[in-house]
Formats: sequence, structure tokens, C-alpha cells
Amino acid sequence: MERSHPTDGLPARVLARRTIHTGRKFRFDALSLRTTDGEREICGIRHPGAVVLLPILDTQEGRCVVLIRNFRPLLGDHGKVIWELPAGTIEPGEPVEVTAHRELVEETGYRASHLAPLGRFYTTPGMTDEVMWAYAAYGLTHVGAKPEPDEFITVEQVPVSRALAMIDAGDLADAKSIVAILTAHRRGML
Amino acid sequence: MERSHPTDGLPARVLARRTIHTGRKFRFDALSLRTTDGEREICGIRHPGAVVLLPILDTQEGRCVVLIRNFRPLLGDHGKVIWELPAGTIEPGEPVEVTAHRELVEETGYRASHLAPLGRFYTTPGMTDEVMWAYAAYGLTHVGAKPEPDEFITVEQVPVSRALAMIDAGDLADAKSIVAILTAHRRGML
Repeated sequence: MERSHPTDGLPARVLARRTIHTGRKFRFDALSLRTTDGEREICGIRHPGAVVLLPILDTQEGRCVVLIRNFRPLLGDHGKVIWELPAGTIEPGEPVEVTAHRELVEETGYRASHLAPLGRFYTTPGMTDEVMWAYAAYGLTHVGAKPEPDEFITVEQVPVSRALAMIDAGDLADAKSIVAILTAHRRGML
Repeated sequence: MERSHPTDGLPARVLARRTIHTGRKFRFDALSLRTTDGEREICGIRHPGAVVLLPILDTQEGRCVVLIRNFRPLLGDHGKVIWELPAGTIEPGEPVEVTAHRELVEETGYRASHLAPLGRFYTTPGMTDEVMWAYAAYGLTHVGAKPEPDEFITVEQVPVSRALAMIDAGDLADAKSIVAILTAHRRGML
């Protein structure tokens, strides 16, 4: 009697994995696959997982979200500064909620009294195994940002209606941020 | 008088770019950056851009969306089959709407009579420059799928309420698909 194998029911089998490049935050791997048509290689980023935070703040202007303007060197020829929600990579052995609290303070200067899960998702499953956990962050106290030396971030409070208009206009055009904001909006949390 | 430079106002300058690996669909690059703290290297995927399609179909069961189950070799140790919307990479010189019509037929077997734009976004700006254009696809006629040899896809019609429940349950957990579905839902298109 044959024992079941983890690849039963899958249309291709991963034969081997080799690392092409190891960066600071992730690894770039090549996988050899055996399919019904033969063997082929595919490449992608092996990632430890990440969090995205939706910090919610009630102000005199009404309910706001905290957005960042973040420098992204990979975009365009010279890099671009884009609007995003705060986010960050899980450190080895770090519980996901610890990452969430840590990244919120590091990137925005706000400490949250509690987090509410907004789900988790694959960011780009054709390119990486990255899973991202999304949380709304409440009970915010400003304690001062602690950016890492390689981060170039400015922080802004934006009313919810403006954040939604920025998504519609394509000015807030970062997938993880759109997922978190539209999920919270649909659930009546914004 | 100094002339303006494209990097004016940016916190770091891209000094050089070298390609570490060239795959079939994208390239993996390392960039040398000069920042106020010195020089450092960051890596990421250079991507030609992509489309994601939200095919909308009125059936006897009510309004449905067409989802695929897609084998993703990079996920987990052996690859995983996950729910997604159809999507694909822009070929060199191809207009984006041509990619959208082509990928819809290739992956689902449906031809659309027209597309309605749902915006565009960066999929994972810390990892790649990929921009994804989202479209709702209407007026669908089944003409038969034409998967590429490296694609392992099955196609299903899912009622809108079920697709939203799958997002809430984490069963439809692909960021581009969530962005397209929640955007269309918020605009009253679903």
C-alpha cells in the first residue's frame, strides 16, 4: 500500500531548491519542478512573512488613519516616495503581534493599546511565499518614531474619507494598504 | 545655477543596478544606494507589469465571479493550490487591455465584450516594481481555455456573496484578488 505524500493531488512536484542570492530581509531561490510536461525551473523570493497596520485615530477632524510616505528604491529608475500603511517584516522567532506593535512604533511613533485582526493574505504568490497579517491598531499614544537607518518615512494623519478618495484616485496605490483599508471599511470599522 | 535632477527631493540615490538572475517572466536585480548614512545594497524583482481580471457573470444562481484555483510552486515546501482571480504578465510592447483580454481567455476560457478599469496598484513595492492593472470583465462568452504549458488552473463560477465570505474566512487570500473584488463591491459593481 502506498503511503500518502504531501504532493498528492498537486500538479507538479518540487524536486530541488537552490538559493541564488541572500539579501538582508529575504532570499531569492530557484526551484526545479517536475510537471506532466517535464522539468522546468521557477524563481522567487522566500520571505519570513510580514505585517501591515491600519492605525485608527479619532481627532477633532473626525476619524483618521495614519499613513506614511515611504521611499521605495525599486520603483522607477530612481526610486519613488509612495503612500502606504506602516508595515514590516517578521523577525526570526518573533510572534506576529509583537512584530505588529514593534513596526507601528518604529514607523509611525504611535504605540497601540490593542490590535484587531483584519485577516492575512499572500502578497504576490507568483513571486514570493510572503504572507502578510493585517491588523487595525487602536488606542494610539504618540511615543516617537524609531526608524531603522535604511528607512525614509514621513507620517501623516488622513481622514478616512480622504484615504478612500486617495485609493479611488490611484494616489494610495499599495496593494497591502488597499486590502487593509477596504476590509476595515467593509466591516464598519472605519 | 544648478539644474534639477530626477532624484531631487528623494532621500537616497540609486548609484548602480546589476542583474543577479534573469528568469522567464522577471529579473532579479541588486541596486547600490547612496543615502545620508552611506552606501548600501538592496535587491528586488524588476517586473514588466501585470493585469488582474474580475470576470462578472449573471447566472440563474445570481451574479457570480469567475475564480481560478491556481498551483503556486513557491508556497510552502511543496507548492499550494490557492483561489485567485485570473491574472497575467504584460508581454513586451503589449497594450495593457490586450493583456487583459488575452489572459482572461487563456486562464478561464471566457472572452469579454468589454472591460471596466478598477485602478492600478503596486503589488509589493518593497520587493518588486510590479504594477498591476485591475479590470472588471463583462459580456462573457465561453470559448475554451488556453493555458500555457506551465499553468495548472481550474475555473469555477462563485456567487458574489460566497466570494466575499471566502475573503472573510481567509480562503480567498490573494492580495490582488481581494483588491479587485472589494473595489468593485464598494463601487456597487458586484
